[in-house]
Amino acid sequence: MNSDSKEVLLQKANVLIEALPYIQHFRGKTIIVKYGGSAMTDDELKKSVIKDVALLKLVGFRPIIVHGGGKAITGMVNKLGLETEFVNGLRVTDRETMDVAEMVLNKVNKGLVSMMEKTGVKAVGISGKDGTLLQVKKKLSGGKDIGYVGEVTQVNTGILSTLLDNDFVPVVCPVGSDPDCNSYNVNADDAACAIATAMKASKLVFLSDIEGVYADPDDRTTLISEMTVGEAKAFTASGHAGGGMLPKLNSCIEAIEKGVGRVHILDGRTPHALLLEFYTDKGIGTAIIGDHEEKYFSAR
Amino acid sequence: MNSDSKEVLLQKANVLIEALPYIQHFRGKTIIVKYGGSAMTDDELKKSVIKDVALLKLVGFRPIIVHGGGKAITGMVNKLGLETEFVNGLRVTDRETMDVAEMVLNKVNKGLVSMMEKTGVKAVGISGKDGTLLQVKKKLSGGKDIGYVGEVTQVNTGILSTLLDNDFVPVVCPVGSDPDCNSYNVNADDAACAIATAMKASKLVFLSDIEGVYADPDDRTTLISEMTVGEAKAFTASGHAGGGMLPKLNSCIEAIEKGVGRVHILDGRTPHALLLEFYTDKGIGTAIIGDHEEKYFSAR
Amino acid sequence: MNSDSKEVLLQKANVLIEALPYIQHFRGKTIIVKYGGSAMTDDELKKSVIKDVALLKLVGFRPIIVHGGGKAITGMVNKLGLETEFVNGLRVTDRETMDVAEMVLNKVNKGLVSMMEKTGVKAVGISGKDGTLLQVKKKLSGGKDIGYVGEVTQVNTGILSTLLDNDFVPVVCPVGSDPDCNSYNVNADDAACAIATAMKASKLVFLSDIEGVYADPDDRTTLISEMTVGEAKAFTASGHAGGGMLPKLNSCIEAIEKGVGRVHILDGRTPHALLLEFYTDKGIGTAIIGDHEEKYFSAR
Amino acid sequence: MNSDSKEVLLQKANVLIEALPYIQHFRGKTIIVKYGGSAMTDDELKKSVIKDVALLKLVGFRPIIVHGGGKAITGMVNKLGLETEFVNGLRVTDRETMDVAEMVLNKVNKGLVSMMEKTGVKAVGISGKDGTLLQVKKKLSGGKDIGYVGEVTQVNTGILSTLLDNDFVPVVCPVGSDPDCNSYNVNADDAACAIATAMKASKLVFLSDIEGVYADPDDRTTLISEMTVGEAKAFTASGHAGGGMLPKLNSCIEAIEKGVGRVHILDGRTPHALLLEFYTDKGIGTAIIGDHEEKYFSAR
Amino acid sequence: MNSDSKEVLLQKANVLIEALPYIQHFRGKTIIVKYGGSAMTDDELKKSVIKDVALLKLVGFRPIIVHGGGKAITGMVNKLGLETEFVNGLRVTDRETMDVAEMVLNKVNKGLVSMMEKTGVKAVGISGKDGTLLQVKKKLSGGKDIGYVGEVTQVNTGILSTLLDNDFVPVVCPVGSDPDCNSYNVNADDAACAIATAMKASKLVFLSDIEGVYADPDDRTTLISEMTVGEAKAFTASGHAGGGMLPKLNSCIEAIEKGVGRVHILDGRTPHALLLEFYTDKGIGTAIIGDHEEKYFSAR
Amino acid sequence: MNSDSKEVLLQKANVLIEALPYIQHFRGKTIIVKYGGSAMTDDELKKSVIKDVALLKLVGFRPIIVHGGGKAITGMVNKLGLETEFVNGLRVTDRETMDVAEMVLNKVNKGLVSMMEKTGVKAVGISGKDGTLLQVKKKLSGGKDIGYVGEVTQVNTGILSTLLDNDFVPVVCPVGSDPDCNSYNVNADDAACAIATAMKASKLVFLSDIEGVYADPDDRTTLISEMTVGEAKAFTASGHAGGGMLPKLNSCIEAIEKGVGRVHILDGRTPHALLLEFYTDKGIGTAIIGDHEEKYFSAR
Repeated sequence: MNSDSKEVLLQKANVLIEALPYIQHFRGKTIIVKYGGSAMTDDELKKSVIKDVALLKLVGFRPIIVHGGGKAITGMVNKLGLETEFVNGLRVTDRETMDVAEMVLNKVNKGLVSMMEKTGVKAVGISGKDGTLLQVKKKLSGGKDIGYVGEVTQVNTGILSTLLDNDFVPVVCPVGSDPDCNSYNVNADDAACAIATAMKASKLVFLSDIEGVYADPDDRTTLISEMTVGEAKAFTASGHAGGGMLPKLNSCIEAIEKGVGRVHILDGRTPHALLLEFYTDKGIGTAIIGDHEEKYFSAR
Repeated sequence: MNSDSKEVLLQKANVLIEALPYIQHFRGKTIIVKYGGSAMTDDELKKSVIKDVALLKLVGFRPIIVHGGGKAITGMVNKLGLETEFVNGLRVTDRETMDVAEMVLNKVNKGLVSMMEKTGVKAVGISGKDGTLLQVKKKLSGGKDIGYVGEVTQVNTGILSTLLDNDFVPVVCPVGSDPDCNSYNVNADDAACAIATAMKASKLVFLSDIEGVYADPDDRTTLISEMTVGEAKAFTASGHAGGGMLPKLNSCIEAIEKGVGRVHILDGRTPHALLLEFYTDKGIGTAIIGDHEEKYFSAR
Repeated sequence: MNSDSKEVLLQKANVLIEALPYIQHFRGKTIIVKYGGSAMTDDELKKSVIKDVALLKLVGFRPIIVHGGGKAITGMVNKLGLETEFVNGLRVTDRETMDVAEMVLNKVNKGLVSMMEKTGVKAVGISGKDGTLLQVKKKLSGGKDIGYVGEVTQVNTGILSTLLDNDFVPVVCPVGSDPDCNSYNVNADDAACAIATAMKASKLVFLSDIEGVYADPDDRTTLISEMTVGEAKAFTASGHAGGGMLPKLNSCIEAIEKGVGRVHILDGRTPHALLLEFYTDKGIGTAIIGDHEEKYFSAR
Repeated sequence: MNSDSKEVLLQKANVLIEALPYIQHFRGKTIIVKYGGSAMTDDELKKSVIKDVALLKLVGFRPIIVHGGGKAITGMVNKLGLETEFVNGLRVTDRETMDVAEMVLNKVNKGLVSMMEKTGVKAVGISGKDGTLLQVKKKLSGGKDIGYVGEVTQVNTGILSTLLDNDFVPVVCPVGSDPDCNSYNVNADDAACAIATAMKASKLVFLSDIEGVYADPDDRTTLISEMTVGEAKAFTASGHAGGGMLPKLNSCIEAIEKGVGRVHILDGRTPHALLLEFYTDKGIGTAIIGDHEEKYFSAR
Repeated sequence: MNSDSKEVLLQKANVLIEALPYIQHFRGKTIIVKYGGSAMTDDELKKSVIKDVALLKLVGFRPIIVHGGGKAITGMVNKLGLETEFVNGLRVTDRETMDVAEMVLNKVNKGLVSMMEKTGVKAVGISGKDGTLLQVKKKLSGGKDIGYVGEVTQVNTGILSTLLDNDFVPVVCPVGSDPDCNSYNVNADDAACAIATAMKASKLVFLSDIEGVYADPDDRTTLISEMTVGEAKAFTASGHAGGGMLPKLNSCIEAIEKGVGRVHILDGRTPHALLLEFYTDKGIGTAIIGDHEEKYFSAR
Repeated sequence: MNSDSKEVLLQKANVLIEALPYIQHFRGKTIIVKYGGSAMTDDELKKSVIKDVALLKLVGFRPIIVHGGGKAITGMVNKLGLETEFVNGLRVTDRETMDVAEMVLNKVNKGLVSMMEKTGVKAVGISGKDGTLLQVKKKLSGGKDIGYVGEVTQVNTGILSTLLDNDFVPVVCPVGSDPDCNSYNVNADDAACAIATAMKASKLVFLSDIEGVYADPDDRTTLISEMTVGEAKAFTASGHAGGGMLPKLNSCIEAIEKGVGRVHILDGRTPHALLLEFYTDKGIGTAIIGDHEEKYFSAR
C-alpha cells in the first residue's frame, strides 16, 4: 500500500470503510469453512483462501477449517502400489489405504497450519481423533462393507471451543475413530456439517469447484444468489438439482434445519471467494437461508 | 460494494487483504486520538474521523478520543454576550465562561458519541470529572491568574480501563476538577498527552490542521515522515520549528520519553487520515518514534 | 464525632447499630433515585442527597441517579432569548431549545458527579445517548408534533451494569437519541421508570417536592405510609389523586407491575429523606408495594 | 428507629452521615480483633462486640475474631477435678487439661459464630488446626517443660483468605498443632499478633479489660490516645509500663514493625468500643501507630 | 515401596493401573461419608479411614465427612456426673448435656482434621452452626419434648461449596442451631442424608459397624451387594429388615429418591473399606441404587 | 480387581495407600516424557506407557508426551524406494524424505492420541508447527548442509498451556518450521529438552532402551540411581560415559541448569517404568538432580 498516490490511497481507505458494517455484523460468529477442490491444489488459490480466513479471524469471526485431501491421497496410494478391492463398484478403504489416507491428510493439515501461521494468525491442526472430536461407526454402502469409511455418531466440541477461546484457528482433517481406536475416513462435507451443527455455527461454507446453484444448469446466467430452505426443497424435489449438487443441497437443508444460520456454496476457483461472499450484499455464490430470514441482507 | 463488477470486487478484496499485516500488528494496542481543528467543524470530515476510529476499534485497537470544543465555545460565549477580562493579553476564563465552556464541550462530546454509536460501535462520553479522571490545579500564565485554566496533576485511569475492557470507546472532553469540585478547562493537547502517558499508550495521534513537520516550512515537498526523539530535539534546538509546531513537538518528545510508543502529527483535513497513516508504510503525516526504533516500519 | 462526651458517643454508636438489620437487608440491591425539585436547587439539600446516596453505596446498595435540569434550562433559554412556539398550549422543544437543554443537563450532570466524587465515592455522568442507553422516538401530544420530546423505546443497560460492576455510581441525565442521532428530551420520571424496569431494580424513588400520597389532600395528617398496587389503583380510580399525583401514581403502578420491587415517593425538601425512608420501619413518605408483600416491613 | 419524632430521626440520619468518611476510609481493610476479658463473660457486652464486628463487616471491613476462653476453661477443669502440676510456679498444661481447654474453646467459638449469624452476617468458627492455620512447637518457660503450651512457628493463611473472600467472618480459637498432630494452647494475644502479621492486617485490636496506656498509671486523666512506635519504645524503656501492659506493648511494637498498620488497645467493658474507636477521631483507647504516620488522623 | 523386588514393584504398579478406570469414573463427584462406630474408636481403623478419604480426595473426589461422637459423649457426661431425666424411656438432652455433647463433638472434629492434615490434605472442621449449615427445630419423640434434639429444617451449603472449591475437605459434626441460637444435637445419619441431598451428592456412605444388608440376617453368606430402591422397599415391606437396619434402609431410600446417586452401607471395621467398595466391581458392603441403574457396574 | 479374595483386596488397597504421599507430592507438576525406542514398537509396552501417563494425569500431574517415529520412518522411506544422498557419512533429509517423515510422525502421533483417549483421558496430538510451538533453523553437521534437519530457535508454549489448562494431554511430534514454512525434522531428545526448559517443567524423562547410567558400563550391578549435576559433569569429564550416553547426559545437565527440576533416564522396556520410577524412593533408572537437592528423596 506504500507507493500509491494519495488518490489511490483514499480509494483504498474507502474500501476499508465500506467493510465496516459487515465486520460489525459478523463479530464473534462461528463459521465453518469446508475447503476442497482446486483451491487446495493451486498454490495461489491456497494462499488466497488462507489469507481470507486469517482476515475473517482478525476482524472478529471465529473460523474453523475442515479440509479434504483430494488428489494427494490417490497420488500416494499409487506411488505405494497398493492393490485395491472393489465392492458395489466402490473402492474399498482397507487398513493399508486408510493408513496412507491418514498420513496424507495430516500432512496436508499441517501444511495449511504453517501457511496460516505465516500470516501471523495462530492455528492448530487436529484430526477427528483429537479429543475424540469425531466419533464414528462403520458406514455401509448398499449394505456392503467398504472398509474404513466412517459415519459420524457424535461430535465432542470441547477441543474446538478450547482452541477458539484461546485465539487459535482450528484446522480439521476428517479422520474419526471408533471406540476400538480404529481410524476411519469421513466424507469432508459430512464432517463439516456435523461440526457446524454441533457448534451451532452462524455460517457453513462449501468452498469447492462449484459456482453455486443454477436455476438452469445449462445457462450460466441463472445462478441463484439466495434461496430459502423451502425453495431449496422444492428445487431438489423438482429434479433440477443434478449429480453432485443433490447431496450437497440436501446437506445444506439438513444443516439449517439443525440450527446452522446460513450455508454458502462458493466457487473456490475465484480468488478471495470468502471475502467477496461476505463483504458484498449479493455475494458470488449461492446462499441457503432459513425460511423466515430476510433475503438479500445488506449490512448497511 | 454491491453493484460492482467482479473485477472491481476483486480489487476491493485485495485492499482488505493488504491490510492484514497491519491489523495483525496493532491488535490490542491502545491509541489516543487528540481530535481538533477543521475535522471537528466539517460534517463530512467528522463522519470520516468517527468511521476511522470505529474501524480501528473493530479490527482490534483500543481507541480513546480526546477532543476540544474549538469555535463552538467562542460562538456560545458571544451569543450570551459575556464580558471578558484580559491578563497578560490572555482572555481570562472566569466562572461564567468556564460554565459555558463546560456546557458546550459536553454537548460536542455527546454528539460524537451518537455518531460513533450509529456505526454500531459502543461509545461513552465522559469528562475529566468522571471518576476523577483528570485532577487539576490552577495553571498560571507568567505568574498571573488567568482563571479556571487547569494543569493536570493526576490521571485516574480506572474509568478508561473499565470502558475499554467492556468494549466501549471512551470519548473524553478536557474538563478537570480540583479537590474543591471547581471545574477547569484543560488544553486538549495536554489532556491527551497526560492520558496517553498514564495509559502507556502505543500511539498518540494529534489530528489537527497541521500536515506534519517540514524540514523547510516554506517547502511543501519537505515533509518529514518519521523522526526519532533525538532528531526532534535537534530540530527544535535548531530553531526550525515555528509557531504552533514548537509546543506540539515538545509534547511529542515528552510523551515518548514518558513511555508512549509513537506520536503522530496528522492533517485532519485529509479524509481518513487515521487509516492512511496506520495502513501504509510511509503514512501521510509525521511520526515521532523512540531513538532505538527502526524507521519506516513495514508491517509486511 | 470527635469532641463529643462519652454518653453522646455511645448514643451515636447505638444509631449505627440500629441500622445494622437494614444494611443487611439491602445489600447488593439496585435502587434508582429520580432526583428533582427543590433538592436540586438548594445547595444544602443537594449535599444532603449526594451524601445519602454515597452512604447507600458504601453500605452495599447499587444506586443509580436519574436527574432533571429543572429551572436551569429555563434560565438559559431566557438568557439566550430563544423564541418559543406553542402547540396545544405546550411549549415546543425545537432544535435550538433542545441544544440548550442538552448543554444544561450535561452541566448539571457533571456537577453532581463532582459532588459525589468529593465524598470519596466514584461516579460517572452519562446521558441516555451513551452506549445508546435510552433509545427514543418522537412523542406526540394529542397527535401534534411538539418537537424533540422523546418516548423511550428501548433501554440498553450495558453501560449501567459496566459502571455498577466496577464500583461507579452512574448519574444519568434524561436525553435520548433516535436512530438518526437526533437528541430528544425525555421526561425524567419516565426515564427513571424505564431504567428501573430494565434493571429489575429493587427500589425506585421519586425524590421531589411532594411529601407522598394523602388520603385527604387537604389534611396533612392523612399521609399514607404504604399502599399496595391494588390500593393505589382503587385510589386513582376513586378520583382522589389530584393534579401531579395522578401520573406519578400511574408510573408507580406500572413500574411495580413490570417487576420493580417497591416505589417510594419522598419529599426532597426533608434533609436525608433517603436515609430516613430506608432506615426506619414506617419511613417518611409513601411506599407503593406489590399486592402480596407484607406491609410495614421491619428489618428487625 | 421506628417511633421516633422527625427531629430525632434527623439526628440519627446525621450520625450515619458523619460515619461516611470513616466507612470510605476503611473499605476492604483487614482487621484482627483479639477478644477477651469481661467482654466475653457479660452477655450484653458480648452482643455489643458481635454487633460491632457485624457492622464493621457490612460497611466493608474484612474482620477476623481471635478469642480466648478465659474463665470457662478453669471452670471446666475444676468441675472435672483435674489435678494440677506446677513448674516454676506455672500450672502445667498436661494432655488432660489441654483436652478440656480445646473442648471449651471450641464451644465458646461456636457460640460466637451463632451470635454473629443471628445478625445476618455469615461466620465460620475454626481453630488453628484447621487448614494448619497455626503450626506450633512446644514453648518452654525458663527452660522448663510446662506441657502443651505452643509457640507459633508458621501461619498458613489459606483458610482465612478463603473464608474472607467468600464473605464469611472467621472466628478463630487459639489452639495449634505440631507436626505430630498434638494440640497446643497458644496465648490468644500471640495468636492474634501472628495472624495480623501474616495477613498484613491494617488493624489489630486488643479488646480486653484495659482502658489503654496511661502516662501515669495512677492518674486516670492521663490516657494516651495515640503513640508512635518510637514513643512506645521509649515508654517501655522508661519502666512506666507496668505488669500486664509491658508484654502487650511489646506485642504492639512487634506487630507494627512486622507490617501491621495500627494496633489499638481498647477497653472491652465499654459498650461498642470498636465503633467508638474507629468512627471518632480521637478514639477511646490507645492506638500505636508507625513512626511516620500522622497523629490524630481525621477521616474528614 | 522402596525395598521391594522388581517383581513385587511390578505387581504394585499393576494395582495402580487397575484403579485407572475407577479414578476416571469418579472425578469431580461429591461423596458424603457418614463416619461412626468402631472406626471412630480404634486408632488404626481411624487412620485407615482418614487415609482412604485423603486418597479419594487426591484422585479427584470431593469428599465431605460427617461424624458422630459416640462413646466419647457418654464418657464425658459420666465423668461430669450429670443427672439424667428420661421421657418415654429416652434420655433427655438437657442444656447441660447438650453443652457437653457440643464440646466433645468439636474436640473429635478437630482431631479428625489434624489427622487429615497430616496426610498432606487440607481439611477444615465445622459444625452445623457455621454458616448456618444446619438449621434445625426441636424434634419431639412421640409428642414429648426430649430436649435439645434437632430436626434439620434447612441446609445452607454455601460453606461446604466454599471449602470444596478451595481444595479443603470439610469435616462436619452434627450440631445445628435454631433461629434463637440454641444448639441442638442432630442424628449423624440424618445430618449426612440432609447434606447429601442438598449437595446433590453422587454418593452417600454409611460407615458403621454393619456389614451391609443380609437376605437372611442369620446367614452371613447372604450379603446383598446391590439392590435397587424398588428392591429395598420390597425388602423393608417384607419385614426382613431388623432393628437398626430398618431406619437406615429408609434413609437410603429417601436419599436416592431426593437425588443422591448411590448409597453404600459399609462395615467400618474392615480396613480401607472405602477403597475396597469403590475400586472393586462388587464392593464389600451393600449399595442401594436407583431403579433404572445398571447393577454391578464395572468401571472397565 | 473383582474376583479377588478379601486378603488380596486388602493388599491392593494398601498399595494405593502407599502411593498417597507421592501423589500428594507431585500434584500440579509439569512432566515431559520423551518417548522412544522399543516402548514405541512393542504393542504391550505401548499400552503400558500410555496407561502410566494416563494415571499420572489423573492423579494430578500435567504430562506432555514428546515422541519420535523411529523405525516407521525408515520403513516407509524404503517402501517408497527413495534414493538417499550422504554428506559426511550422514543421510541427508531431502524434501521428499522430510515429507515422508512428517507423514509418518503425524500418523504415529494420532495413534498415541487414540490410545490415550481410550483410557478416558483427553489427548490432542500436535506437531511443532501448530501454534509455531517449535521454531527452527537449519542445523548443519560439521558445517555441511544435511537437509531439513532443524535446530530449535524458539519455543512458543501457548498451545501447550492452552491444552494443559483445559485438561488435555498434549502429544507432540518433533517437526518444526522455519519462517518460510519449511518443515524440519528435530531430534526428539532436543525437542523434549527445549519444551521442558520453556515450560519450566518439574521433570523431564527420557524413556528409551537405556537402563540408566552405570558407574562401570560393563557391570550391570553398578547402576547409579541418583547423581547431582556436579557428579554428572565429573562423570562425563572422566570419559566413563560411552557412546549414546554422552550426549544424553549433556542434555540432562543442560536441562537442569536451565531450570528443569529433575531429569530421569528410564528403560522403556520395563513395563510401567514411569510409575516405578515415581512411586518408589529409589526408582529403577538414573535421576539427575540439582546440586543442592537432597538425594534419595522419600515422599514419606
